[in-house]
Amino acid sequence: MAPRKDAISKQTAAKIDKLAQGVLKAVKGGKNPFVDIPIRSLANVTWSDKKRLVELGNQKQKRYFFNVSMAKKFMQTFLVSEACKELIDAGKTTSIRDLYYVTKHTLGETRQNTFEDQDESDPIIEDLEVTIDALREELHLFASREGSMVGPITIVDSGDTIDLRRMGSGGWAVPSIVEENVITFRKHEAKYVLLIEKDAVWTRFNEDKFWKRNNCIIVQGGGQPPRGVRRLVQRLHKELKLPVYVLVDNDPWGFYIFSVMKQGSINLAYESMRMAVPDARFIGLSSFDKDAYKLPSNVSIKMDDGDNNRAKQMLAYPWFKHAKWQREIQEMVKSGVKFELEALSRRGISFITEEYLPKKLRDRDWLE
Amino acid sequence: MAPRKDAISKQTAAKIDKLAQGVLKAVKGGKNPFVDIPIRSLANVTWSDKKRLVELGNQKQKRYFFNVSMAKKFMQTFLVSEACKELIDAGKTTSIRDLYYVTKHTLGETRQNTFEDQDESDPIIEDLEVTIDALREELHLFASREGSMVGPITIVDSGDTIDLRRMGSGGWAVPSIVEENVITFRKHEAKYVLLIEKDAVWTRFNEDKFWKRNNCIIVQGGGQPPRGVRRLVQRLHKELKLPVYVLVDNDPWGFYIFSVMKQGSINLAYESMRMAVPDARFIGLSSFDKDAYKLPSNVSIKMDDGDNNRAKQMLAYPWFKHAKWQREIQEMVKSGVKFELEALSRRGISFITEEYLPKKLRDRDWLE
Repeated sequence: MAPRKDAISKQTAAKIDKLAQGVLKAVKGGKNPFVDIPIRSLANVTWSDKKRLVELGNQKQKRYFFNVSMAKKFMQTFLVSEACKELIDAGKTTSIRDLYYVTKHTLGETRQNTFEDQDESDPIIEDLEVTIDALREELHLFASREGSMVGPITIVDSGDTIDLRRMGSGGWAVPSIVEENVITFRKHEAKYVLLIEKDAVWTRFNEDKFWKRNNCIIVQGGGQPPRGVRRLVQRLHKELKLPVYVLVDNDPWGFYIFSVMKQGSINLAYESMRMAVPDARFIGLSSFDKDAYKLPSNVSIKMDDGDNNRAKQMLAYPWFKHAKWQREIQEMVKSGVKFELEALSRRGISFITEEYLPKKLRDRDWLE
Repeated sequence: MAPRKDAISKQTAAKIDKLAQGVLKAVKGGKNPFVDIPIRSLANVTWSDKKRLVELGNQKQKRYFFNVSMAKKFMQTFLVSEACKELIDAGKTTSIRDLYYVTKHTLGETRQNTFEDQDESDPIIEDLEVTIDALREELHLFASREGSMVGPITIVDSGDTIDLRRMGSGGWAVPSIVEENVITFRKHEAKYVLLIEKDAVWTRFNEDKFWKRNNCIIVQGGGQPPRGVRRLVQRLHKELKLPVYVLVDNDPWGFYIFSVMKQGSINLAYESMRMAVPDARFIGLSSFDKDAYKLPSNVSIKMDDGDNNRAKQMLAYPWFKHAKWQREIQEMVKSGVKFELEALSRRGISFITEEYLPKKLRDRDWLE
């Protein structure tokens, strides 16, 4: 791997150091040491109309050491911080599952464990992320990964130069950590990024060499894209100024995938700034495509109660308030049916790459 | 992509042709046309002690056209055959989901559909596979894919030469179809293949450049490896004569993953010949490793009822009859605990790559 003692890692290590120094200072001064932790609950999550992002508010909570109800979490916060600092110093990365094991100890002669299970250590990681303003990837922690990418671009991944124009049918497997200290972009001829919900549909686009004919980067994340894919798409958008199009099933889940890519999610609002692409465009499948592209009714799927409830919830999201989106979602509810991307194959196996998407792009038929 | 009108594709197309010719001949001769389909039910699945594989027996069933209960399936068989033939002729591949949509029609003026849902078309694909003895990949159909691979080997994927020694942190994403007409092997220095259950653990092995120090190919399939990964591992084993080691969690699910890689599965017994590696070695995590590698008891996980039942079922599998396997599984049941691979991180984050696996290999401490 590339040495991880890079600028980003040094910066993150310094942030952890600063946190620890603050506590030490309090101890030396005879004070009750504490950590100031931004609150991650729904009450502190807001929708920013200006930034068009779901984001974390300013509310904080003090976590004290000398406080019966807080002492354990205080200790856990520093166990996790210390482990991350060690990872950074060693130039290594690991999974959040692994971190749980690394930091799990039985305390002295007691039967008390530092952590009982991962449900305890994961929130501490999130606390640390928001407290020192560092994504978990900067703390050298990775999430589970999935996804592949090809396109007219050369990248450097951990010191290896990789030409994504020559990746065969498989593609380059997108890792979980894709920060600048791991992945950098080189020469490219890409005009946009196409994020595809389904690996099978991505394979169609790759096999048909859509990306070559249309000078675009195609990427998939196996359903809801994992953090690595979202962060990478955001970097391609920001650094290379590439528009991002999202191609998902015509169902509430597909809309939700788009929504998370565009605005971020409520659960992890603090990462929106680093993961979301407010300019992302929903290119399909639209509820109006069934008529526009003559899909026979026998390839539709009936919406169930869960779908209908989900769709109605979405109508209330502030980021779906625009008349175009209301019309889009209402059409789905009204029609009572949903469509998978594969339904387009009823018109021919390469209809999606040869007719559907080119026409959508030509007609500028997308939603923002 | 590489042109798919290769020897394998031609052969498969010829098999479909032959099937159709047989039926046409019967029709012309005024006979009731039929297809002879090997039975895929449990009653026709056997364990071959000699081949050390789960395999399909010789029982067949005739599917007639002029038979009220069989006519629809007969028609479906030829719809699927025709669609696969068209795929092959077009040099394209697609997903089994897509094939369902491609072959879904409403019959004439009726309300009858050729297929109601994918649950109807998938078994027809399996029928076709066993009838003409062609894996679905040879029929140009792909399954969902997951997994990544790196190591001291150069491959050609659909005409692109890819050096798996220089794939960064991400690796090459393993596609679903990895037959000789898509993937070929070039120069390599690999001494063995290491199949790792978990992507996070694979990332540890890649980051530590274990494959470079130990001259091995490392591959992961995100839990139970998908067809593409299993077939590719089998090809590496057969064509390059590389031993295969499987590294999984110490739990019944981990043992099952090993079992499928080694013997095939009961559900898809007909594919064992093309997917399984009877010589595969279980390198860990063994139930005895907790003592041998001094894992503290606080990183163990209690077996639940499901685990215990599963383990007891495995004790009865003919391929786990060997005393060594009985001892292994009984130790798990007796101890009442299981361990994840990540538990080794309690001994240090790179303990698994620097001490555990090297010692296991050195001591030839594996099960076959």
